[in-house]
Amino acid sequence: MILDALSCRRSCRSFKPDPVSHALIEEIIKAAQFAPTAHNRRAVEFVVVTDPKVRQAIQSALVAQDFVARAPVLIVPVSDTKIASKPTEDLALATENIWLQVTHLKLGCVWKHVHAEKELSAVRAILGIPEHCLIINVIPVGYPTEKPAPHTDAEFDPKRIHREKW
Amino acid sequence: MILDALSCRRSCRSFKPDPVSHALIEEIIKAAQFAPTAHNRRAVEFVVVTDPKVRQAIQSALVAQDFVARAPVLIVPVSDTKIASKPTEDLALATENIWLQVTHLKLGCVWKHVHAEKELSAVRAILGIPEHCLIINVIPVGYPTEKPAPHTDAEFDPKRIHREKW
Repeated sequence: MILDALSCRRSCRSFKPDPVSHALIEEIIKAAQFAPTAHNRRAVEFVVVTDPKVRQAIQSALVAQDFVARAPVLIVPVSDTKIASKPTEDLALATENIWLQVTHLKLGCVWKHVHAEKELSAVRAILGIPEHCLIINVIPVGYPTEKPAPHTDAEFDPKRIHREKW
Repeated sequence: MILDALSCRRSCRSFKPDPVSHALIEEIIKAAQFAPTAHNRRAVEFVVVTDPKVRQAIQSALVAQDFVARAPVLIVPVSDTKIASKPTEDLALATENIWLQVTHLKLGCVWKHVHAEKELSAVRAILGIPEHCLIINVIPVGYPTEKPAPHTDAEFDPKRIHREKW
């Protein structure tokens, strides 16, 4: 049941220090590469950061809480805006697939926003990413120290469905 | 395996005329409501269109091919930008969940862009959606007349993974 997978996808901000193997990271990014991209341009790439100094630098750039540097891995989805037709949408879709695969692998992650322009420039500089590339988020990944409760049907709100008209 | 679900999610632009029950539409939108939203604002609503005249009007507004009006249902995700923190991202994430649930239910769908500002204004007018609400796409949904091949591992490109730096 896909709904089980979707309902178990929750934000995780507390990680064990245990490393995540590169094989698992590849499984996660494979899921991201199966996400749709506008006009099938597939212009999404991924920077995988494990170096503690770089994680700390990114945390500082994002004025983030310490879960960013504490996560053993940061995945940074990057869209080449010279190729992409809808870079923001492409990055969001890839992130949802990452999140679902992370959850399936009993790992945890969260979407940490990278706000334009100050944070974006800082993260680009730290990772050596060219100016024509967009980043909208950083995804800290690791083994979770807690398991948030899944979404339940009680959260489904049929009032947010409008039939035929607003 | 979540990867199976992600790999079977493909674009469908050819639909049988058979209607899709409102119970199934609710299952699909429940999946969308389990998608993350920035700062958990949950400001995404959904217009469900089955009226053939309205489907035709939307198709005309989008200068789209006839698969838009031929689909028995159009789902239009709408973000209230007075509440949402990242409306475009929220709508993209909800759409990926819709797509996965649609696929699971053996239905098909596709992302049809609604480009700002001309198309967006037209779709807002047709559906009576207020100006402060954003729409980025229309999702035609129906029983597919063909089954596109799933993504395969051969499409996974490890060269799009950068370790530690771009």
